Amino acid sequence: MTSSTEKYSIKLQIINEDHIAMGPGKADLLEAIQKTGSIAAAGRAMTMSYKRAWDLVEIMNMCFTEPLVKKSKGGIKKGGTTLTPLGLKVIDQYRALEVKSNGAIKKEMNTFFSLLKHPPLDK
Amino acid sequence: MTSSTEKYSIKLQIINEDHIAMGPGKADLLEAIQKTGSIAAAGRAMTMSYKRAWDLVEIMNMCFTEPLVKKSKGGIKKGGTTLTPLGLKVIDQYRALEVKSNGAIKKEMNTFFSLLKHPPLDK
Repeated sequence: MTSSTEKYSIKLQIINEDHIAMGPGKADLLEAIQKTGSIAAAGRAMTMSYKRAWDLVEIMNMCFTEPLVKKSKGGIKKGGTTLTPLGLKVIDQYRALEVKSNGAIKKEMNTFFSLLKHPPLDK
Repeated sequence: MTSSTEKYSIKLQIINEDHIAMGPGKADLLEAIQKTGSIAAAGRAMTMSYKRAWDLVEIMNMCFTEPLVKKSKGGIKKGGTTLTPLGLKVIDQYRALEVKSNGAIKKEMNTFFSLLKHPPLDK
């Protein structure tokens, strides 16, 4: 979920060289994995292919000092996927960053939003 | 340009329904148009195709209450493209939003960055 005011939203992406280490979609996916205990189920809940969900998990695991997601006993195909302590910490910190960065510009965003057309139209 | 601390950066995207009304790339493109007086030259300066540069301009013009970019006399093929007063205003406001939202989380971002691997590696 991106934080939003009406139809507009701000997206906080954390880039690690060429990779998006964390962003709204990845944060949602981590939360869905935490909830469902399965990458496949989390992907389905987000109408995302299994491959796409796995790719995102692999990017995250690659970008942080330790993996954020790990298989628990039973293996991936049987579900049993959990967030690591670092995964939980990353989610908490990312959500706090979203709230703080958005809150800091709330007043200015209202001014900016007034410059946007509702809805966007070609003509 | 995204604001960055070493190899990491935060990306402020302003979404208008399904469209990215403004973001780091579009802001850079507007500034390049302002500098070069030409969408084609601005695109080249950003190693972006003419079509891509035009598509981004069209999205921006569609998303705001008035166009941000307009042809001046002489026509597009001869260059002569300028930012409208709204285009200049959007750039100013967007850059200020970037600075403020980034500044607000600077301390927390340093903590977050310490969780990232430098460089990101597959293994």
